[in-house]
Amino acid sequence: MLNWCIVKENFDKENFMLNETLFHLANGYLGVRDSFEEDFRGKLKSVRGTYINGFYETEDIQYGEKLYGYAEYSQSILNITDVQTILLNIDGERFSLLEGNIKSFKNELNVKEGYVKREILWESNSGKVLKIDIKRMVSFTRKELFIIEYNVTPLNFNGEIEIISIIDGDVSNITASDDPRIGTANAKHLDVIRCEVKENIGIIENKTRNSNMSVITSCTHDLNKENRLNIDKKEDKIIFKFSLEAKENEKIEFVKYSIFTDSVRYENNYIENLEILKEVVENGKAFYFDAQKVYLNEFWKSSDIIIDGDEKLQEGLRYNLYQLLQSVGKDMYTNIAAKGISGEGYEGHYFWDTDIYILPFFMFTNSFLAKNLLMYRYNTLDRARNRAKMMGHLKGALYPWRTINGDECSAFFPAGTAQYHINTDIAYSFIQYYLITEDKEFMQNYGAEVLFETARVMFDIGHFNREGKFVINDVTGPDEYTCIVNNNYYTNVMTKYLFENTKLAWEILNENKEKLQELISKIGIDEEEIKAFEKAKENMYLPFDEKLKIHPQDDSFLNKKVWDFKNTPKENYPLLLHYHPLTLYRYQVCKQADTVLAHFLREEETTIDIIKNDFEYYEKITTHDSSLSTCIFSIMASRLGLKEKSYDYFINNARLDLDDLHHNTKNGIHTAAMGGSWMGVVFGFVGMRIKNGELHFNPLLPDKINKIKFKINFKHRELEITLDKEGLDIKLISGNSLDVYINNNKKTVE
Amino acid sequence: MLNWCIVKENFDKENFMLNETLFHLANGYLGVRDSFEEDFRGKLKSVRGTYINGFYETEDIQYGEKLYGYAEYSQSILNITDVQTILLNIDGERFSLLEGNIKSFKNELNVKEGYVKREILWESNSGKVLKIDIKRMVSFTRKELFIIEYNVTPLNFNGEIEIISIIDGDVSNITASDDPRIGTANAKHLDVIRCEVKENIGIIENKTRNSNMSVITSCTHDLNKENRLNIDKKEDKIIFKFSLEAKENEKIEFVKYSIFTDSVRYENNYIENLEILKEVVENGKAFYFDAQKVYLNEFWKSSDIIIDGDEKLQEGLRYNLYQLLQSVGKDMYTNIAAKGISGEGYEGHYFWDTDIYILPFFMFTNSFLAKNLLMYRYNTLDRARNRAKMMGHLKGALYPWRTINGDECSAFFPAGTAQYHINTDIAYSFIQYYLITEDKEFMQNYGAEVLFETARVMFDIGHFNREGKFVINDVTGPDEYTCIVNNNYYTNVMTKYLFENTKLAWEILNENKEKLQELISKIGIDEEEIKAFEKAKENMYLPFDEKLKIHPQDDSFLNKKVWDFKNTPKENYPLLLHYHPLTLYRYQVCKQADTVLAHFLREEETTIDIIKNDFEYYEKITTHDSSLSTCIFSIMASRLGLKEKSYDYFINNARLDLDDLHHNTKNGIHTAAMGGSWMGVVFGFVGMRIKNGELHFNPLLPDKINKIKFKINFKHRELEITLDKEGLDIKLISGNSLDVYINNNKKTVE
Repeated sequence: MLNWCIVKENFDKENFMLNETLFHLANGYLGVRDSFEEDFRGKLKSVRGTYINGFYETEDIQYGEKLYGYAEYSQSILNITDVQTILLNIDGERFSLLEGNIKSFKNELNVKEGYVKREILWESNSGKVLKIDIKRMVSFTRKELFIIEYNVTPLNFNGEIEIISIIDGDVSNITASDDPRIGTANAKHLDVIRCEVKENIGIIENKTRNSNMSVITSCTHDLNKENRLNIDKKEDKIIFKFSLEAKENEKIEFVKYSIFTDSVRYENNYIENLEILKEVVENGKAFYFDAQKVYLNEFWKSSDIIIDGDEKLQEGLRYNLYQLLQSVGKDMYTNIAAKGISGEGYEGHYFWDTDIYILPFFMFTNSFLAKNLLMYRYNTLDRARNRAKMMGHLKGALYPWRTINGDECSAFFPAGTAQYHINTDIAYSFIQYYLITEDKEFMQNYGAEVLFETARVMFDIGHFNREGKFVINDVTGPDEYTCIVNNNYYTNVMTKYLFENTKLAWEILNENKEKLQELISKIGIDEEEIKAFEKAKENMYLPFDEKLKIHPQDDSFLNKKVWDFKNTPKENYPLLLHYHPLTLYRYQVCKQADTVLAHFLREEETTIDIIKNDFEYYEKITTHDSSLSTCIFSIMASRLGLKEKSYDYFINNARLDLDDLHHNTKNGIHTAAMGGSWMGVVFGFVGMRIKNGELHFNPLLPDKINKIKFKINFKHRELEITLDKEGLDIKLISGNSLDVYINNNKKTVE
Repeated sequence: MLNWCIVKENFDKENFMLNETLFHLANGYLGVRDSFEEDFRGKLKSVRGTYINGFYETEDIQYGEKLYGYAEYSQSILNITDVQTILLNIDGERFSLLEGNIKSFKNELNVKEGYVKREILWESNSGKVLKIDIKRMVSFTRKELFIIEYNVTPLNFNGEIEIISIIDGDVSNITASDDPRIGTANAKHLDVIRCEVKENIGIIENKTRNSNMSVITSCTHDLNKENRLNIDKKEDKIIFKFSLEAKENEKIEFVKYSIFTDSVRYENNYIENLEILKEVVENGKAFYFDAQKVYLNEFWKSSDIIIDGDEKLQEGLRYNLYQLLQSVGKDMYTNIAAKGISGEGYEGHYFWDTDIYILPFFMFTNSFLAKNLLMYRYNTLDRARNRAKMMGHLKGALYPWRTINGDECSAFFPAGTAQYHINTDIAYSFIQYYLITEDKEFMQNYGAEVLFETARVMFDIGHFNREGKFVINDVTGPDEYTCIVNNNYYTNVMTKYLFENTKLAWEILNENKEKLQELISKIGIDEEEIKAFEKAKENMYLPFDEKLKIHPQDDSFLNKKVWDFKNTPKENYPLLLHYHPLTLYRYQVCKQADTVLAHFLREEETTIDIIKNDFEYYEKITTHDSSLSTCIFSIMASRLGLKEKSYDYFINNARLDLDDLHHNTKNGIHTAAMGGSWMGVVFGFVGMRIKNGELHFNPLLPDKINKIKFKINFKHRELEITLDKEGLDIKLISGNSLDVYINNNKKTVE
């Protein structure tokens, strides 16, 4: 089972919050942190959290000085009713890892079968020895379900045992006023509006104060021994106490089923919740554990990457891909949050991370999930249109920099709304989706509209300057260490690509005259406008420095001093936590790949020599303070034949959370970096690109890896790709033959 | 008395708040809005306010996303205990301007004697006719004192009259979440911690919740008739009820003395307050009204500007100069708030308005008050040093963009802290002070230190670029419609001047070796550093466009589209209330004079032809949404011989508050514009400048004005300057003879 399991063999009090994140369970809808059944509140630093993707509270954003068009309200993912608590009393002694003697401890996340299992051998202060095995699962096939299987075996005694199971509706979010990466709003968002017991089922309903959303949590239990049950219903929590006589070496099997349903998805929340619970109990736990295995088997069949010769990498990659599956919203209400459903960092918001870093994985391995993510963007297009109006654009759509429901909630526009490139990123993913799937219908029904509307805003913020070049002023690129700049290379390149592809979308739309007319009458697009985009594309200004032969990140980037890295102490990283934005803005220093990222996505815009110059130039001044950086540097190092470098960046990225390299995994996983690790293999080591609609490969296998093997879907084919010391091999698993290019040599895969 | 009085002859319910501001009384310490003795709360829109300059509450600033080095806390001037209320009952009928019949009404601010007088002839619903005369004064000679003289004469009846005088400690500030020019913090800041009556004196003490400041308000009364007094002491207010028998045509004279002392200035606040009250009552009201007249006589003797031939202008100017006297802090704790002590706009904060717009008036007419303002800056130098450290500068000082106590409290740094020019503005005023007063001692003791420390930060934010020019990136100039730009012309020019004058300061300091050594050991300055400033000065980059022959406002200003003024509806001004900052940033559109202001202050940096080009270029794209704009355009129009234009801009500025041209005088007066109106006469029409330490004049009298006459102090001389149709005449009132230049011709004034 090696490489399918993440194992911790000691109880690590210091890193409890980190492990709560790493071992969290989720299914795209529900997420539960691994806070353990024992309650460590007040004893260990813990974020005891359960979340539903897209379930949030709103609050007016407070501004010291508010200006026109500022985002009005925040959206914060909510910590909902806590069902994790199961306490154990043995003849009056309370089981606790902080007391007695831990004889053995093992916690294991199994990504092939989709559960977390904890095995403990524990001796109480009075010498009673217990074996405790706990298995937890958030079900992929029954998304509302969280199961805890809690088995206890007394090893050296008979006696009275109490199992206390709690449902607690008194929950709060965490806050941190000094870290911009965590929410700053108030902590208490949910009121308990129902707390009842019905046929031994505990039911709590929580309601938000502003967003008018509610969630119902129901719990029931199963116990394999005769017992006395006492239920204590308080105002906002329900305490189930099971008392029983335990016998030496007889296993007590206790199961806690919890069902979470929210008012976003369930019209008759209360009734549906209890129906689901009933169904789940009838089916029994084994049914769901089996279904989980089957589900994941399917997932791994299409999505696994096998890395031969590097255990650490293999572990990291599998972990990452599994987390992406755990994180991805599987209905049209939701997307992938920057932290998945694993914590409260970035308030559960969706960023461009999805469109640029995560969608490639899903588009090439599971287009159904990819389509859902794109549909989320399409479904929020009206809000983006409203936002565009607010921002002074007479037509078009401006997507929010950060959001849950599609409304902008960035409270600092220079590093938020000013990142107009979000429009180009979303458009880019619609274009890629078309290139990979050839799904014309999707382009006609949804993609074209998104492309035209996003292009309109990009066209509106630019203009033709005195020399006739199309310039784009006062935007912020991906690198937030310089804000509100003119002609950010990334933004201009991506806008150019968007403009270029409005023509493609227009052509595809023209193949369906009915759809064409529909869209024309809906948004008033016409050929003239497409031509205007074309003209802007042809005259797009891309900053270039003749002296250094590099692309400056923006018009004024090279006029700045280079940051004094030599005299910056290590503890001052990430810089954003130690320097005022204005200090950072004044220097050549990058938080993350920006121009280098543009070269990855749009290599066609320049030459390989200049890409190399840029790589070398920006590498020296990039801190990688963002988790979105090293994967891109890895890919581009591969592209430039820098074998060792590409490997070093890759390993840094692939184990970013497992090794807590950014020291904040406690607040949640980094889903973009995880998507980046898939890209690092496929676009990096294997060197895959789509060029002119065809697959190209420029592989470069790191010395430390013997073999890489994975599958992708492309234009109705399934391909199995193997890269080893012998070279690259591409097998056609299904579909018609296909021409591909390996190191620019055409090859037909049959 | 014409032109010494501002008179309103009708009770204007619609503009009640506006008039509360216009007729407010203040003395640099205490300010009382003219909210009338009757209580209109709940009936009219009113801000019933009393304030002490520099008495404020602090609160943590809430940020949606907080980054390193953000201003931590707000400072808000506080509405303190209200003593304005005096109610009148006549046989059970309550006097109110909203009831009965106003037979005549007149409200008058007398700027020569320093009071507001209200005369009302009123008939009650039952037909009783009263003459009510109310005279209010905030004393210049006893700064803690506010007097209300309340006289009532029954004209057609005898009867029972009750005079109800209230001291109310239950006070709040106003808030407005959608206008950045008003505070957004909570409204209730003061708790009543003492409410007592002692020998018929009412005493209330208010305490802030965070800033740990308190203010004591005491009131006592004087009544010329036999009466019965009933005192009703509530938790947070005290109600004095005087009942008496009134007789037809017998005047009832009622006086209310109020004393305000705060814990900032008074160590034994309580004792000192009551001692002052006692002294005041002993002296009696006439004493203070007389003293007020004497004080103002002195003021007008040195500060008046006589405008012959233009009543409106004369009225506006006198009003403005009087308001500056009312607003200027006369102790070292305080400065001049943007709104004086007349309202809550801009939270009572001090900006660069003082240094660039207001100090010239005081420096040329009353150097003692000017010195106090400079000392306030010197006294907050340590806070500016701390701020510099926070902003990543290893040495030097960075003054706050907006503040009361010297700590930065700008909550939006791109239009706040990024305005590093504040450093150069403050330094500029220290240099001007030296040039006007020749006060070497002041330069040695204070000025030099301020110059060196501000210069250090300006030197640190700049660098020598690839071409060896000294450039300054990522700052915001005065014009907030473009933020965070490179090489803002204003900032660079002013920095150049600062660097140049560090040399002067160094030379003056060298004349006092003891002081020199003291400063060297205090801040480690040396000749090398002065030379470095000199080198930066010599290589200062000043943006210039060869094609248009203008100075671009910053490096990228001309790369932007010009704002579409034609299609901007009138109601969309000021633009900042109708467009997102990013929209404004993307266009060539200015809120206020920026490059044009630089040319006014540092004409030496370019040629008159280019100044003309710039004036014409920027005039087309400046909205004057800031009240700091038209005065500068007026001055520069004079400079360029544009007679009509200079007059039009001037009148717009000179009556900005009196005619409520910015529609927000209700929130307070615009002190910078007031200072600007003095400058408009002296630097504009009369064309006075200091060049190479000498006075130059280039007069241009508008056709509508017959004569301008005023006095200034310059280098220990007092000069009387007269400009009329015959030309300019300069008389030496006191001091030695002086060479001046009129239209570049030297003339000796004897």
